[in-house]
Amino acid sequence: MNVASQEIVGHSPFDSKKLDRLMEEADLDALVVTSRHNVQYLLGGYRFFFFDAMEAIGVSRYLPVFVYQRERPENAIYIGNRMEGFEKELGSIPVASAKAASWGTTDAMGLAADHIKALGPGVKRIGIEPSFLPSDAKEFLGEKLNSASLVDAQFVLERLRAIKTAVELDLVREASERVVSAMSATFDVCVPGMSKHDIVDRLRREEHDRDLVFEYCLIAAGNSHNRAPSNQRLQEGDVISLDSGGNYKGYIGDLSRMGVLGQPDAELSDLLQEIEEIQQRARRAIRPGALGGDIIAAGEEAVRRAPHGNVLDYTAHGIGLVSHEAPRLTDHGPVPYTPYDADQPLKPGMVVSIETAMLHASRGYIKLEDTLIVTEEGWEAPGDSARGWSTGGAMIPK
Amino acid sequence: MNVASQEIVGHSPFDSKKLDRLMEEADLDALVVTSRHNVQYLLGGYRFFFFDAMEAIGVSRYLPVFVYQRERPENAIYIGNRMEGFEKELGSIPVASAKAASWGTTDAMGLAADHIKALGPGVKRIGIEPSFLPSDAKEFLGEKLNSASLVDAQFVLERLRAIKTAVELDLVREASERVVSAMSATFDVCVPGMSKHDIVDRLRREEHDRDLVFEYCLIAAGNSHNRAPSNQRLQEGDVISLDSGGNYKGYIGDLSRMGVLGQPDAELSDLLQEIEEIQQRARRAIRPGALGGDIIAAGEEAVRRAPHGNVLDYTAHGIGLVSHEAPRLTDHGPVPYTPYDADQPLKPGMVVSIETAMLHASRGYIKLEDTLIVTEEGWEAPGDSARGWSTGGAMIPK
Repeated sequence: MNVASQEIVGHSPFDSKKLDRLMEEADLDALVVTSRHNVQYLLGGYRFFFFDAMEAIGVSRYLPVFVYQRERPENAIYIGNRMEGFEKELGSIPVASAKAASWGTTDAMGLAADHIKALGPGVKRIGIEPSFLPSDAKEFLGEKLNSASLVDAQFVLERLRAIKTAVELDLVREASERVVSAMSATFDVCVPGMSKHDIVDRLRREEHDRDLVFEYCLIAAGNSHNRAPSNQRLQEGDVISLDSGGNYKGYIGDLSRMGVLGQPDAELSDLLQEIEEIQQRARRAIRPGALGGDIIAAGEEAVRRAPHGNVLDYTAHGIGLVSHEAPRLTDHGPVPYTPYDADQPLKPGMVVSIETAMLHASRGYIKLEDTLIVTEEGWEAPGDSARGWSTGGAMIPK
Repeated sequence: MNVASQEIVGHSPFDSKKLDRLMEEADLDALVVTSRHNVQYLLGGYRFFFFDAMEAIGVSRYLPVFVYQRERPENAIYIGNRMEGFEKELGSIPVASAKAASWGTTDAMGLAADHIKALGPGVKRIGIEPSFLPSDAKEFLGEKLNSASLVDAQFVLERLRAIKTAVELDLVREASERVVSAMSATFDVCVPGMSKHDIVDRLRREEHDRDLVFEYCLIAAGNSHNRAPSNQRLQEGDVISLDSGGNYKGYIGDLSRMGVLGQPDAELSDLLQEIEEIQQRARRAIRPGALGGDIIAAGEEAVRRAPHGNVLDYTAHGIGLVSHEAPRLTDHGPVPYTPYDADQPLKPGMVVSIETAMLHASRGYIKLEDTLIVTEEGWEAPGDSARGWSTGGAMIPK
């Protein structure tokens, strides 16, 4: 959090000096931000409750728009839905100027264009989020500002968010701990006869009870590697892999834990220990100044030495408001992108998710996924409990 | 549900003959559908669980794509995220062909473009959803299919969904009844000292307990007309307006009910009765063959005759997968659009939301909103309970 920028624009919590620097590097005069996650970030956590989940309304969609002129935080404007007048009245929107005036994509963008025009002819290169800017809104913006260039600013906004503030790290901790706590509570009540749908319904309830927004749960059971919730019924002795994302005030907790309906046999204990070893080796690479790629190298080296290396998937990625974000560590993880941070130093405040999965032919899908915060000393692992085999309710004496 | 199309494309539940007709009227050779609600509709309720709420991942966003060639349901293809391979394996995706192959917007659209190219040179006019097609995906599609025109197909898709099937109506009924039931349960525990946030948290939990996805709650209390959840604390005698959307399997229940912390006095009883009268007069206009505009005219006439007509807001709109959709009844409702259905006949299976709100200077914000299904006989009102003053937990003897 940049105190100077706070003073200028009220209580905006983003580091405007850092944003100015990133925009200068990208030669951007202004930004038109339209993704929910980046708008939330630039508005210090504000997100309009009405469209928190829903997006479509009428014949168009909700499009929050934040406009920022480089080095001019006092010229920032937020354009929201008309109902956001209630929030404006309450003083909930921390920005120099807020208009609660739109219903759809083009009326919102028309107001943004008017605002940019009024900033004068110096605003020539405008950063946008191409994947989060609807095509009709972009075309309308282009027509209204026909002498300006619209440039991809995704990288600038991702970099701005790469190092989390103390407030953000608290939200990451809460999200991670609550997801693992919800998983433990769910394993406790798993019994033979339940379906994968039943288990996910229970996990959803446990996450809701912990004030998380349930995002998803990938679940595998028995010897299947299929991770979609389904009517597959659990049997005595089945292993269960839970991999769930739950968000706390926008920040995603994304971890995986294992359960078994009964007591794990020696082989299961060994298999999970093999995964645990890789997870531990990978996290030991984490410290300020180590390269992002070191996390990948450490894990891959551990996989090579593991007995079941040929059926192990290992990867790591940044996490925060988006489930895969900076630091970008590898180009062969689940979500492909240029591994920009592989040769960049890790910094305190970055958050990394590390995941190792075994696709075992007869024992099923076995996985651990952990969240690591880069600290001055090395790392911190929120939600670092229940890493062994959780045993289901089947073991409760009847 | 069109049985013929079912036989052709497996178990696709949409009426392909109706879609063909609408596309012919709009002179469209193919559709590229990218909104979650329309993809869900065309895939018979299928919606990928992983991105049910979340949309961003990595450096792009999730983009489900459904491609349909007119009169060729056997050429339909769905392009989903790679993890949707789990769903494909389970046979959950009812379409002639499904590819679980993308991570972001442009890779998904590249596959769609390849598919369209393979359909031959006859595919020249392609319908898109401009507000739900990211700008980068549209540009990529345009480049790959440079001889084709990309045309707004929003109207075609809205018309396709305007008359709900029996299965959809059951979901609308469930959504509406569950929302009202959750509101009643919430009013039961409202006591002085709770904040508006507390009440919304409770309503959210009650909706979750009824297997609804909580979408939003607009809430006003006391004599304030501000409907954002806030730290405003309830006092003895306060009125509470709840206006919440909860969705059941994608279909939105959107109703408003009133509570009071104590017993309503004679004036409050009269004010709610005044609103009730307008709501009842408006619904009496509903029958097959009546014009959409008749619902508006009946309500507006009732408002003109009401004692507090000058502080009454009355409107009506279609509802279903989207909270304001066909039938489009008025151009001066909360969401502005051309009132296409004002002079079109209502048909059985259409669903209409009718809402009347009073902004009373001293008694606060008082509102009822109801959901009406057009039936062969007239109308049906799911969730039609708790229309009077619900009294809070304050009245429970201590």
